[in-house]
Amino acid sequence: MEKGRSGCPINQSLEIIGDKWSLLIIRDIMFAGKRHFRELLQSEEKIASNILTNRLDKLEQEGLLSKNSDPGHKQKYIYQLTEAGIDLLPVLAEIGTWSIKHRPVDLQKYKHAGQVAKGGKEMLKEIRKGLVKVHLK
Amino acid sequence: MEKGRSGCPINQSLEIIGDKWSLLIIRDIMFAGKRHFRELLQSEEKIASNILTNRLDKLEQEGLLSKNSDPGHKQKYIYQLTEAGIDLLPVLAEIGTWSIKHRPVDLQKYKHAGQVAKGGKEMLKEIRKGLVKVHLK
Repeated sequence: MEKGRSGCPINQSLEIIGDKWSLLIIRDIMFAGKRHFRELLQSEEKIASNILTNRLDKLEQEGLLSKNSDPGHKQKYIYQLTEAGIDLLPVLAEIGTWSIKHRPVDLQKYKHAGQVAKGGKEMLKEIRKGLVKVHLK
Repeated sequence: MEKGRSGCPINQSLEIIGDKWSLLIIRDIMFAGKRHFRELLQSEEKIASNILTNRLDKLEQEGLLSKNSDPGHKQKYIYQLTEAGIDLLPVLAEIGTWSIKHRPVDLQKYKHAGQVAKGGKEMLKEIRKGLVKVHLK
């Protein structure tokens, strides 16, 4: 049953999202409404195309994203969050809150992050509801 | 002011802790009472000595750990959490909670993680108090 380096809960997450890119992809799908490879390629952090392919495959394999063909476009796939993906919302919220306190963040540009950090549990509940509606059907 | 790939709060954290090891080191200092290089080297995930050196340096540089010579041992250093390090507690708690729900964790071996996940805000407050007492003086 145990996968990876240990069964420690911290480690078990890091085995999947312990890198510089995976959570940025989740962020873009969760908060920026991105669904397609090409959109995900265009974020400010400039992920390379081969890394994006690699991470999307891994996140799908590990059950954080679902990948389906886009009925409107023969050669396109739509990426959506699974329940496990949506459940990363509080992780992202705490990571953002930490950065706002301790790192040189740009809250002019990333206004929403400031709102989430201030919004507390109630806001997370609302965001979660919206995500379930959009991604899980 | 801006450092790294973007000023996004998610990204600003990942620039420092977005890897497979940094949060395991924080975990060991935070929850396992480890303070010395040799102890940190002995965790279940078997970090390599050069990676441990590299991550400790980075975490100290970025202000998450403090490093002081150990008065009892000429050639030893003691690593402790700074306030920014302690503030990662809710991040670790949410990561652990997510793994417990979605990953093959070993809660027999890592009992404390299960308690933290169930303990909620009140428990985090208590743990935080203890950390401040031990690390910040």
